[in-house]
Amino acid sequence: MGFWKTWFSTSDSTATTKTTSFEEMSAEAAGTSSPSGDRIVFSTERDIDLYELEELCDAVGWSRRPLRKVKKAIEHSFLVATMWQVRGNQRRLIGFARATSDHAFNATIWDVVVHPDFQSKGLGKALMKYVLKKLRSEEISNVTLFADPHVVDFYRTMGFVADPEGIKGMFWYPH
Amino acid sequence: MGFWKTWFSTSDSTATTKTTSFEEMSAEAAGTSSPSGDRIVFSTERDIDLYELEELCDAVGWSRRPLRKVKKAIEHSFLVATMWQVRGNQRRLIGFARATSDHAFNATIWDVVVHPDFQSKGLGKALMKYVLKKLRSEEISNVTLFADPHVVDFYRTMGFVADPEGIKGMFWYPH
Repeated sequence: MGFWKTWFSTSDSTATTKTTSFEEMSAEAAGTSSPSGDRIVFSTERDIDLYELEELCDAVGWSRRPLRKVKKAIEHSFLVATMWQVRGNQRRLIGFARATSDHAFNATIWDVVVHPDFQSKGLGKALMKYVLKKLRSEEISNVTLFADPHVVDFYRTMGFVADPEGIKGMFWYPH
Repeated sequence: MGFWKTWFSTSDSTATTKTTSFEEMSAEAAGTSSPSGDRIVFSTERDIDLYELEELCDAVGWSRRPLRKVKKAIEHSFLVATMWQVRGNQRRLIGFARATSDHAFNATIWDVVVHPDFQSKGLGKALMKYVLKKLRSEEISNVTLFADPHVVDFYRTMGFVADPEGIKGMFWYPH
């Protein structure tokens, strides 16, 4: 947890200049109705507490996955994006997303999650905007994902198109 | 082109033991009707002549892409699979595919191409079988791709399912 140690051991006024992988978004800018005093911050730092991440995924009802494999997936993702609620000197992981990529043409976004307590406040949109901004800054032209039926409309509002020109997302299952 | 130098400078009987990323499939096993004497071989070697790859992609009418970016994409793909026709001591690149991955859960296959002269001989299927075997050997459980409309049925015969459980492949376009 080197990142947070750095963040909380320095004064607020200097921390942002010392941590390059950190970006703050005020509750208002993120479109959230959180009580004033809370801040919503985003990071691409990969030094994530895997148990805290598991807790977040549990909260939305995902099947548990071996932490050894989650660790490997995070290491080998092109982008790892986290969203945090910061209140005083406490921080809480409230959102996560990651992307695989060839670092040149394509990126595919996986494992987008926002804690239920923070849903319907525009924070999913804020997280996705952060992810897209990061991918575009790396000159990735083709950003893709596989959306569960109940979030297809959400991604549509973000500018994603389902089956463009008849292109079909397909999953392989052994015969 | 270190791989092929090694391959062709050693006798046939020892070459396969010296090159680990090389796998041979007889024309018959690959389901091809190529004249006898030809062999179809597969490799995961990344030391590909980018001009030869561009020629292959030109042959199927793909838009040209900057070779600098193609090189980067190959370097950062999880798997790069090539298919070659070998006749005597000549070899010709006749197929290509690659996959991005988080090295743990997901892989996405991109840029599957078979030279028009070698299509409708079961070689696309042989190439995909080779790719799937390699991905499965790395314990990747979720293999995905985005299929153009005219190849959706081809991938169906390989065990791919479009929109399973209503999951939609989506592409992002800037507003």
